[in-house]
Amino acid sequence: MTDQKTISTLVIPNTTKIVLLVLDGLGGVPLEQGGLTELETARTPNLDALARDGICGLHDPIGRGITPGSGPSHLALFGYDPVGHLIGRGVLEALGIGFDLQSGDMAARGNFCTVDSDGLITDRRAGRIPTEKGAELVRQLRSIELPDVEVFVEPVKDYRFVLVLRGKGLSGPLTETDPQKLSVAPPPVEALHADAARAASLFNQWVAAARELLADLQPANMVTLRGLDKKPNLPSMSGVYGLRTAAIAAYPMYRGVARLVGMDVLPEGESVEEEIETLATNWADYDFFFLHVKKIDSAGEDGDFDRKVSLIEHADQVLVPAIVGLHPDVLVVTGDHSTPALLRSHSWHPVPVLLHSRHCRSDEARAFSERECAKGALGRLPATEIMPLAMANALRLRKYGA
Amino acid sequence: MTDQKTISTLVIPNTTKIVLLVLDGLGGVPLEQGGLTELETARTPNLDALARDGICGLHDPIGRGITPGSGPSHLALFGYDPVGHLIGRGVLEALGIGFDLQSGDMAARGNFCTVDSDGLITDRRAGRIPTEKGAELVRQLRSIELPDVEVFVEPVKDYRFVLVLRGKGLSGPLTETDPQKLSVAPPPVEALHADAARAASLFNQWVAAARELLADLQPANMVTLRGLDKKPNLPSMSGVYGLRTAAIAAYPMYRGVARLVGMDVLPEGESVEEEIETLATNWADYDFFFLHVKKIDSAGEDGDFDRKVSLIEHADQVLVPAIVGLHPDVLVVTGDHSTPALLRSHSWHPVPVLLHSRHCRSDEARAFSERECAKGALGRLPATEIMPLAMANALRLRKYGA
Repeated sequence: MTDQKTISTLVIPNTTKIVLLVLDGLGGVPLEQGGLTELETARTPNLDALARDGICGLHDPIGRGITPGSGPSHLALFGYDPVGHLIGRGVLEALGIGFDLQSGDMAARGNFCTVDSDGLITDRRAGRIPTEKGAELVRQLRSIELPDVEVFVEPVKDYRFVLVLRGKGLSGPLTETDPQKLSVAPPPVEALHADAARAASLFNQWVAAARELLADLQPANMVTLRGLDKKPNLPSMSGVYGLRTAAIAAYPMYRGVARLVGMDVLPEGESVEEEIETLATNWADYDFFFLHVKKIDSAGEDGDFDRKVSLIEHADQVLVPAIVGLHPDVLVVTGDHSTPALLRSHSWHPVPVLLHSRHCRSDEARAFSERECAKGALGRLPATEIMPLAMANALRLRKYGA
Repeated sequence: MTDQKTISTLVIPNTTKIVLLVLDGLGGVPLEQGGLTELETARTPNLDALARDGICGLHDPIGRGITPGSGPSHLALFGYDPVGHLIGRGVLEALGIGFDLQSGDMAARGNFCTVDSDGLITDRRAGRIPTEKGAELVRQLRSIELPDVEVFVEPVKDYRFVLVLRGKGLSGPLTETDPQKLSVAPPPVEALHADAARAASLFNQWVAAARELLADLQPANMVTLRGLDKKPNLPSMSGVYGLRTAAIAAYPMYRGVARLVGMDVLPEGESVEEEIETLATNWADYDFFFLHVKKIDSAGEDGDFDRKVSLIEHADQVLVPAIVGLHPDVLVVTGDHSTPALLRSHSWHPVPVLLHSRHCRSDEARAFSERECAKGALGRLPATEIMPLAMANALRLRKYGA
């Protein structure tokens, strides 16, 4: 019932403002059984106050036991069915660097890598070549032409680039060419459907030309392609929810997902402080703000429990009071997934979520933590239900049926 | 898994009795953040005792964040998918006054209104003319004839009436003609699908004739039509659950929904006391009773927190002991939705539910309130799962699979 088509029929105008603060990788796990998680360890008086006055729960980004990628988990937070709308990493990466993907385009994420004289991979990231080196190689790769399609190659960061093919009749699904291990040759792109044969052939022609062009270089003498996919046509958030939406996010991937659902992507900052500044400056012009804080997740990925704790504390001290000071009608604080330092990766653990509004009917949760959120009256909920709840609390949905 | 088709294959006969007591608009919100809801404020020793011995939870009538209308929320409580079975208010209103709607009939809810000499609405309710006046005007409107269809006009209450067209090939969806504001003319009925063109034309012919007929009267010199819809064919509760079902409800709308699912509608009373009398008198003849108490919702709609509290207390003192005294095998007490006095309207907040039976495996909920129900072992559940639970507790469902 929280499907977007139905929700969109219930939307009524209002002047209320909604802020969705995503602390990437927020959820955690204790290092020792019976201990505290990162969030439970962190001193977070401001988040705790919001949790006490608000309503809390634990959300599953995709489903119980499923470890989400960043793309699907953000789509779910924005209220889009993440399974019906699975999006390849190539598309997200292209959108993330601000590439103007058009309908029908196919995008792939590319990695420079190193192969030996037999063509077997010896380094999947080509010694993590610096960004400038990657950009220089990308310029060389732009000389590759393919029949009947336009080809775009764009640098991302370090050893990563984006490849986009534009033309008629391109279609997936396609396999990837990064074998994810050493001492094997990158396999060719394979079409997983008859309609995808032409796209597979074009990508393979491009890889062959790239291999030839890079052959005598070191360490980046080969490429692999991942997440080959077509740009999906998602309904925009403004169309679905009647909201003027804006994203504030420092990392390309998250700006990319935001663009995919039609958000205005505001100029990013280098720091949390600059993100606050952007929020305040643009406060009057939007109804919905998606604020993304990346570094908490990175600390989890690095297995650095203490750094994750202190980054959560920093968000609590700096970001939360600044947002509260703007008096949003609805403030949602959550993560897109858990990233326990113990696991050094995204995980399937459900994610703490708090919703604060004048109308939320607060619950017994006394603090913002995994344990307290488990007692919250939001209960255990799919991430896709957070937007309908935010809309309801913002008094932006009419009654369903008579 | 709670879909009715599957449930119906599991039904086994028994002599157990189920009572579903619906306190309309039961759920609430504190007036001040951190305060108590209406139900938490009310002194409800009898409901609290049931909650302690029973099992509690919070149900979502339609979905998280969705504010339900009375029709969909009751269908959900009866175990019907409320989204798959959305029903127009015209149909509910017609059923509510006991009109014998037949398959293929289209019904609309009509309002008498006042228009000025330019045809612009000056009063959407024609000065709330009394019921007798409305009935007199309805008698005049019965003179209107339409080609190839039968026309029925029935008074409801005050300025409201029901219009039913009966004939072959009538179909929706249709737009309404109440613009919901003043100083505009009622728009014509429009067909939202090619198949609906004939019905739209017939309704418009009828409205034109009504305008002519009422033109010289005051204040009711025009009509508007709302909720134009066809009677849906729902499976009956007796067919699905193998129960002899009866409804006791004072308001037409609720008797209407009950009729739609095939319940016998017992004579209503003016008071809670009379409803109890009806229940006791008919106790032997049915397996399932739906008891509806309307006034709690009305107090919420009026924004009258204290009156809502005292009406809940009255139900606790008078209704609950009388029902318990009949020793139903399963007693479910809940609301169809929340109606917080704070919001003066239906709302999206989940609704407290308690289920009391010999077999329910009671939980930690110590009282019947939003907060205690949030701790209950039923958890957060869709309203459609209440009937399967009631059936199970009544030992009326066999094992699924071998």
